[in-house]
Amino acid sequence: MTGAVHQASLAVRRMGIETQQEYVVYMHRDCHVCRAEGFEAQARVQLHLNARSIIATLNVVDPPLLELGVAGLSNSAWRALKPLHGDRITVSHAPTLDSMSQVRAKIYGHRLDAPALDSIIHDVAAGRYPGTHIAAFLSACAGGRMDLQETIDLTRAMVAAGDRLDWGHAPIADKHCVGGLPGNRTTPIVVSIIAAAGLTIPKTSSRAITSPAGTADVMETMTPVSLGIEQMRRVVQREGGCLVWGGALALSPADDMLIRVERPLDLDSDAQLVASVLSKKIAAGATHSVIDVPVGPTAKVRSVEDYQRLKELLEQVAQACGLNLQVVRTVGTQPVGRGIGPSLEALDVLAVLQGAAHAPVDLGVRAVALAGQLLEFCGHSGPGTGEAIAQRLLASGAAWAKFQAICEAQGGLREPTLSRLREPVLAQRDGLVHAIDSRRLARVAKLAGAPRAPAAGIKLHVRLGDRVEAGMPLFTLHAEAPGELAYALEYLAAHPVIDVGEPR
Amino acid sequence: MTGAVHQASLAVRRMGIETQQEYVVYMHRDCHVCRAEGFEAQARVQLHLNARSIIATLNVVDPPLLELGVAGLSNSAWRALKPLHGDRITVSHAPTLDSMSQVRAKIYGHRLDAPALDSIIHDVAAGRYPGTHIAAFLSACAGGRMDLQETIDLTRAMVAAGDRLDWGHAPIADKHCVGGLPGNRTTPIVVSIIAAAGLTIPKTSSRAITSPAGTADVMETMTPVSLGIEQMRRVVQREGGCLVWGGALALSPADDMLIRVERPLDLDSDAQLVASVLSKKIAAGATHSVIDVPVGPTAKVRSVEDYQRLKELLEQVAQACGLNLQVVRTVGTQPVGRGIGPSLEALDVLAVLQGAAHAPVDLGVRAVALAGQLLEFCGHSGPGTGEAIAQRLLASGAAWAKFQAICEAQGGLREPTLSRLREPVLAQRDGLVHAIDSRRLARVAKLAGAPRAPAAGIKLHVRLGDRVEAGMPLFTLHAEAPGELAYALEYLAAHPVIDVGEPR
Repeated sequence: MTGAVHQASLAVRRMGIETQQEYVVYMHRDCHVCRAEGFEAQARVQLHLNARSIIATLNVVDPPLLELGVAGLSNSAWRALKPLHGDRITVSHAPTLDSMSQVRAKIYGHRLDAPALDSIIHDVAAGRYPGTHIAAFLSACAGGRMDLQETIDLTRAMVAAGDRLDWGHAPIADKHCVGGLPGNRTTPIVVSIIAAAGLTIPKTSSRAITSPAGTADVMETMTPVSLGIEQMRRVVQREGGCLVWGGALALSPADDMLIRVERPLDLDSDAQLVASVLSKKIAAGATHSVIDVPVGPTAKVRSVEDYQRLKELLEQVAQACGLNLQVVRTVGTQPVGRGIGPSLEALDVLAVLQGAAHAPVDLGVRAVALAGQLLEFCGHSGPGTGEAIAQRLLASGAAWAKFQAICEAQGGLREPTLSRLREPVLAQRDGLVHAIDSRRLARVAKLAGAPRAPAAGIKLHVRLGDRVEAGMPLFTLHAEAPGELAYALEYLAAHPVIDVGEPR
Repeated sequence: MTGAVHQASLAVRRMGIETQQEYVVYMHRDCHVCRAEGFEAQARVQLHLNARSIIATLNVVDPPLLELGVAGLSNSAWRALKPLHGDRITVSHAPTLDSMSQVRAKIYGHRLDAPALDSIIHDVAAGRYPGTHIAAFLSACAGGRMDLQETIDLTRAMVAAGDRLDWGHAPIADKHCVGGLPGNRTTPIVVSIIAAAGLTIPKTSSRAITSPAGTADVMETMTPVSLGIEQMRRVVQREGGCLVWGGALALSPADDMLIRVERPLDLDSDAQLVASVLSKKIAAGATHSVIDVPVGPTAKVRSVEDYQRLKELLEQVAQACGLNLQVVRTVGTQPVGRGIGPSLEALDVLAVLQGAAHAPVDLGVRAVALAGQLLEFCGHSGPGTGEAIAQRLLASGAAWAKFQAICEAQGGLREPTLSRLREPVLAQRDGLVHAIDSRRLARVAKLAGAPRAPAAGIKLHVRLGDRVEAGMPLFTLHAEAPGELAYALEYLAAHPVIDVGEPR
């Protein structure tokens, strides 16, 4: 009897409903499968098609939206199951999610051991956790509640849940920025310098999590970044480096699922951060990684104590996982460069690579320092010589040529698009710029539409210590939709972001 | 410009998609409002219709599911906005959820003060928290991470977020069971005895959270329980008592939202439990409440230490909120009565009230003890006399008459329906019943369809210490759908629930 029930199948239809990462199946209220299995609206059900299966949320629908015998699939579920014409799916109860008992144990204050983390991350990567369960897991692990061994085990579990690249030689260079400093887009410049120096740097980047732009968002305004593993391999073999989106590879699929929930929750967790960063480097085959951690009152890492804690955790977890790691503390008191948002940051990157007269000096200096450190760390340059070599590769145009070559190999270099809607925000008084709130600036850029609207964001016209006069523009808001521009202005009216005061 | 954008309106259509508590709005990919505001799939948006507004999740749809200029509403969103023919809605960005910064602070280990809890609970009650945010809040507060003052403030915030009844006199009696013991359905019996004694007991009950049946689920198999406040008031004025579902009243609306997320997460938290229980009693106008806490190895409260901690927390929070409270510890080593699941438990309740020969003795004894205690606590009976008075009211048929009168006042008494599908589960060997796992039994009853399928569940044929022979039925599974019966049997094959062994 059981077999017969489980075999009952349904024709499928693409509903044309975009639910993003959530898989949704729509079933007729009187559908025989629905009734036989006792499914109710919002139940979690398993959909089977040939060898593929996914866990989806059931939305029960009234006629006439669906006829009997047909199941509707959200666009995401359709993409995952890839039905062909005439294919039929079977539907069963979602299997018991045993790993949730581990999540509950963590919520109740117990440690998670390696098998527990493996089972959770395996289920997350397989799409078995609905958003609420992922949120519970993230909350239980945030706020310093993961110890060193748990963080190591989480990192290993995240590597094990995905593919892992092997480049067949060493060193494989890598750089990373912990973020929190708007406009700190050194990666494209560093990768170009390192690859121009002849080293291998297969760089994967993320999209924004809680910021107005990730490196992948910025690169995407100039070149395709959603490359598969084989495409990425060809680019790296040809040019020594790449600048691709990590999410299109299956290097750490659990991390991608976690990040989609973490982003709207705006949660930060050292353990999650370290596991997310290091699992992707290890999976990408890196052997030598330099990590930039900006420290400042409104950056992600706010104090030297926080920096020290994060540095030690990164180093300890990297060592346990066999990755050579250097952590570099940089100044994080104000945004880097002028642009905040994908296109506007891309313009800064291009100006630095091209040696343009208007290029933001701070961005170039930071990129060269990191590249120099990485050259020395990989044994390419002797101690104390890396920075000068990096500077020469940038100034000579070698890095710019390499950047163009990488973009060509990825599918072509294009100009970032600019926004139609712009609104300057003016100084209310004469004085000196005393403080710039990076967090609020990032917030404003996001309200204006970044990173989804690539041309949206902020162009800064002042830096700390600048003298301004009332009526001078402090920055210009860029947006692609009037509603979003209005929304950002509304927030700005209540939340000042640049403090202009008396000379001190 | 802002005004114009925010005024842009859309016609509405009921999509006929059941998403339960989640509000979903469906908008055409090329909809002018969608484009002007920069909305993306899964964004949280605010829908306005006349004076009403809700926060909904946006699902972007492809043609031809919706034409341009029309927004589709999920059934839940339609019920909340109540559009009339020709009504148009406006759509704007969901306001910034400032209270989430308090949730994050709690996740990071900080205390929540009264204003913080007020703001969180206010936003939750207003439907502004998506499931992921509620899950984060619940996880941050579970596992003993709320101190006494936080629990008091949470309770007060939950009372403040809803309506509050005032009966104009005292005492107002109430009883409650913390749960975890399948079949422990004393409430309908206690309410009937207390009301028969002439006291006022306006009892509101919940539906199941993590169990196979809540009192509201059981009562619903016999009478309507979804009464509004005015209907409930009329029943209580006429009969002195009622047995209604608390969720249909707006007594603690935040609690209902929290419970819907808590249920699939299967999270237990003392603070959440205490706030949930006490906020509803206080909002319902109770002055004297007796709380039954079963203690046993597979009950919700497993040890005397856990009982003591919960009792003190209940008493301290009740005192701070001006509620007279007595906590009673009862034996929780095995299920009570024979039925587990709404209809099967209702049959036990009816048998006890009717004094039937086959009535389960343990259920009657427990109900009489609790009713006796409550009679004394309210000052109706002298010390040591309550139980005898309660027993007399039950044995005389006065309680049964009162139960029928209450059901009639609520809309009529009906027979619980019985299941079509039954499957006995047999003893594998001769021996004595050594242990009954209440948690697993509850799990099996839920897999069989309870509480959603009211006739589904378990009928127990043995109790602790009974002698059984191989092939005798230990219990019978009841189900309404073959798939669910199969699902419960599948679980049973791997998870034994009744331990039959050598006489010891």
